[in-house]
Amino acid sequence: MGRPGEGRDNNAAGFGEFELIARLFAPLSDAAHGFQLTDDVGLVPDTDNRVCVTSDMIVAGVHFLPDDPPDTIARKLVRVNVSDIAAKGAQVSGLQLSAAFNRDRDVSWIEAFASGLADDLALFGAPLIGGDTVRSPGPDSFSLTAFGRVGPHGLVRRSGAQPGDGLYVTGTIGDAALGLKILKGELGMVPLGRRQPLVERYRVPTPRHAFGAGLGAFASSALDVSDGLLADAGHLATVSGVSLDVSFDRVPLSGSAARLVKGNADLHLSLMGAGDDYEILFTTSTDNSDALAELAGASDTPVTRIGHVGTGPAGTVILRDSAGDVLTVPSQGFRHF
Amino acid sequence: MGRPGEGRDNNAAGFGEFELIARLFAPLSDAAHGFQLTDDVGLVPDTDNRVCVTSDMIVAGVHFLPDDPPDTIARKLVRVNVSDIAAKGAQVSGLQLSAAFNRDRDVSWIEAFASGLADDLALFGAPLIGGDTVRSPGPDSFSLTAFGRVGPHGLVRRSGAQPGDGLYVTGTIGDAALGLKILKGELGMVPLGRRQPLVERYRVPTPRHAFGAGLGAFASSALDVSDGLLADAGHLATVSGVSLDVSFDRVPLSGSAARLVKGNADLHLSLMGAGDDYEILFTTSTDNSDALAELAGASDTPVTRIGHVGTGPAGTVILRDSAGDVLTVPSQGFRHF
Repeated sequence: MGRPGEGRDNNAAGFGEFELIARLFAPLSDAAHGFQLTDDVGLVPDTDNRVCVTSDMIVAGVHFLPDDPPDTIARKLVRVNVSDIAAKGAQVSGLQLSAAFNRDRDVSWIEAFASGLADDLALFGAPLIGGDTVRSPGPDSFSLTAFGRVGPHGLVRRSGAQPGDGLYVTGTIGDAALGLKILKGELGMVPLGRRQPLVERYRVPTPRHAFGAGLGAFASSALDVSDGLLADAGHLATVSGVSLDVSFDRVPLSGSAARLVKGNADLHLSLMGAGDDYEILFTTSTDNSDALAELAGASDTPVTRIGHVGTGPAGTVILRDSAGDVLTVPSQGFRHF
Repeated sequence: MGRPGEGRDNNAAGFGEFELIARLFAPLSDAAHGFQLTDDVGLVPDTDNRVCVTSDMIVAGVHFLPDDPPDTIARKLVRVNVSDIAAKGAQVSGLQLSAAFNRDRDVSWIEAFASGLADDLALFGAPLIGGDTVRSPGPDSFSLTAFGRVGPHGLVRRSGAQPGDGLYVTGTIGDAALGLKILKGELGMVPLGRRQPLVERYRVPTPRHAFGAGLGAFASSALDVSDGLLADAGHLATVSGVSLDVSFDRVPLSGSAARLVKGNADLHLSLMGAGDDYEILFTTSTDNSDALAELAGASDTPVTRIGHVGTGPAGTVILRDSAGDVLTVPSQGFRHF
């Protein structure tokens, strides 16, 4: 699972989706393959732990905008799954697509969707294995299941972070959230040149598949940042049974994001709780800094140390400013819109 | 794929779903794993062809009735996938669930759904590996991906039927279609005792997993009957490049179905084109009748020879009455309602 419902908003019935899943579906899983649904992927039975699998479901109006270009919807769906697999030290090997197209979508829309899918299958070198397509009277809904070839060191799990380990993140945080705010008109007028890279990052994220493929050699724990940096750090802290200290000033922003949040401390802070970054958050002993630097260089991936595994209560994440004061982010991991 | 959209009704845009898939998605597949989407399952990469995979997607109001009991929706979803795997000579080994619950579904509904899922996972001895759950403003939509352990003789494909082979089907045909008609009130008053087994078969089909597990030893081709007997015979005939002759009078009906269609020739004939039977349709040389009888006995599965592989044009299915005259069924494989 990309941990079903994690960090998502409470529903009308007043219970958290994550709690719901944990309570109802986790017992249907097993320790050997499903990890009681505590990780981003499971292991396919009868593969000697060499093949992992993950699924993501997206619904128009919930996880993407109904008027998003159809090729970008398909590509984001692929990349979200590739990101889950990369964060586990594996490489995508094939995809299974279930698609419910709204009954009013015309052929050209579906063609564009298939074309985006084709582009990314070629990019990541993974074939379509199968799936199902149906028509729906409701919003377009897509479920993609991706298979991954597990690296020689085995899966990098959410568990495994050790006190003293450094906490690292690839790339930059917050671009996608700003891109979504721009699309929703929440940031007023933004010049096209500044707007474009942020919107693109929201619509078509770039999973860290080259970096992820080498992660197994040194990472003690990892997951991809999809629900939001702090929410996902919380998942990692919970499953590893540790606390995490994050330094706000070290969390890397892109040039576009830095310019937009300049002079707007609330907006800057909100990016720590925003989602859709699809970067890899991981822990590793500082003894491994050479191996880490080598992989970052070889895969051309920026990596920043943003904190460390602390000695606080298990499952807590503490965000501090440069003076060491604790910062509070209003909404962590809010993903619906 | 449970061959996406096969045999389903044309959509508003006026093209068949099957044609759409064949044209847009088949090229994204590969010969080694996805079979260009011409079969019920694909093969998971890096498993030496030992693990197969299939997905089915169902939407409330299209593939099930929104007020169907939630446990039966979950169980049907599992069984539809188990049926696909059984018809390929494989055994289900694990499941991946993507669920978009309508946002107004309350906890007890989801609990009942999870409970039905749990029952069938236990029945078929397969764990939940992972998946995703989300909330949707639209109808409940579920995609289940099932993994199968391929038998020692390899996958039983849709291709492989040879002229002269016998054509066989397990169990009986038409119960589910009659159950659906009863639920929709199309058959008037039906006594409860006669109504119940038909409705149950529509809601919770019984896949032929014990029979399917031994199918690889002798079947030259097979698939499960989901779109309708004649539609699925057509898929088999097309992929095998043969014609099939089906004897109407030999197609087995249950006692309940036989009583309902008595004196109603049109209703009887319509069952040949109805769906949701989840029986296995297969071909085998008549030399294998001993092996076939042995497996049928060991798995307690009724099997009926209903025709043979003919010498007509590839892809054609001819239904004949006892006098040898050709019968025409108005709507083949209509699955929506």
